[in-house]
Amino acid sequence: MQALYDYLSKKVSQVITEEDFDVIKGHFTYKKLRKRQFFLEEGEICKNYAFIVKGAMRQYYIDDKGVEYTINLFVEDWWAGDRESFVMQTPSVYYLDAWEPCEVLLITREDTLKLCAECSAFNEMLLKLDERNNIATQKRITSTISLNAEMRYQYFVDNYPFFLNRFPQHIIASFLGITKDTLSRIRKKMMRK
Amino acid sequence: MQALYDYLSKKVSQVITEEDFDVIKGHFTYKKLRKRQFFLEEGEICKNYAFIVKGAMRQYYIDDKGVEYTINLFVEDWWAGDRESFVMQTPSVYYLDAWEPCEVLLITREDTLKLCAECSAFNEMLLKLDERNNIATQKRITSTISLNAEMRYQYFVDNYPFFLNRFPQHIIASFLGITKDTLSRIRKKMMRK
Repeated sequence: MQALYDYLSKKVSQVITEEDFDVIKGHFTYKKLRKRQFFLEEGEICKNYAFIVKGAMRQYYIDDKGVEYTINLFVEDWWAGDRESFVMQTPSVYYLDAWEPCEVLLITREDTLKLCAECSAFNEMLLKLDERNNIATQKRITSTISLNAEMRYQYFVDNYPFFLNRFPQHIIASFLGITKDTLSRIRKKMMRK
Repeated sequence: MQALYDYLSKKVSQVITEEDFDVIKGHFTYKKLRKRQFFLEEGEICKNYAFIVKGAMRQYYIDDKGVEYTINLFVEDWWAGDRESFVMQTPSVYYLDAWEPCEVLLITREDTLKLCAECSAFNEMLLKLDERNNIATQKRITSTISLNAEMRYQYFVDNYPFFLNRFPQHIIASFLGITKDTLSRIRKKMMRK
């Protein structure tokens, strides 16, 4: 639980007392995921959100033709889950799995709402997290709509350098919405510069 | 301010008392925007967020070559602003203007934070708003990455029918990241069905 405490302390402006953290801790469950183990499968309800203590996860979507689209990548100190399914308690359209062996701390929707009401530090963390998420997704939409493949990869390298060594090229290409061949061509071009 | 009261009452689970709403009201300023009046220009800091009482707004980005990309569209009961610039108090990369004459209620970043601390109903509204925003942007990313132009337009028609009569075809095409000609072809094909 130390990772969660460190994370919270970094994120919120208020001091997290031992009593606060005891309350917070009580709402989380520790779990290990094997490499490639599913955290969520299409059609399931996302019952838990995961705070990643160790490892890397990915969220993807498979269309009617069986084509896989990488929607999100997650590493340590990130929260993984399908927000829509979690909030609405409806079946997910996504798959989430452990790309590397993971250690995660799980919290249910009910406990999230309880904690928000009980603990102002957790409430502040959630507000800030959503704020940053909104900013990041807004930027991703802008970059997807307005940048060409090369600029999109450059943006990715600049903003998510920590993903580069954790995920293979075909996953990164899929995350950027480009083919593996296009990514390979862009990388060669950039190395020559 | 009645529109804001009605909006809040619909969004939160708790009852909004007259005292609550007096506090909330005190942090907002009423403003009218003429058609095409800028609410925010590239390089400016987004000092206010706008709750739209009446009218329609759009957020767009202009790249180095002068090409315009529609990032967001907004109508009544929506919140308009550049979240990143508003939260970080950094210069915006976007333009926001009134597509139709607008009446808006403005709130500063400082007052948003104050209200969150002072009024639990406002805090709840903001949490829920961010939650819905995250869900909507996640869906938009998934649709942008995984759907072809025709499916993207169908998704837009199904999920944002109220935009169709408010914005012209070239703005909708830009919002979908497709050309006006592609959109026109798709619409003709769909009408024939």
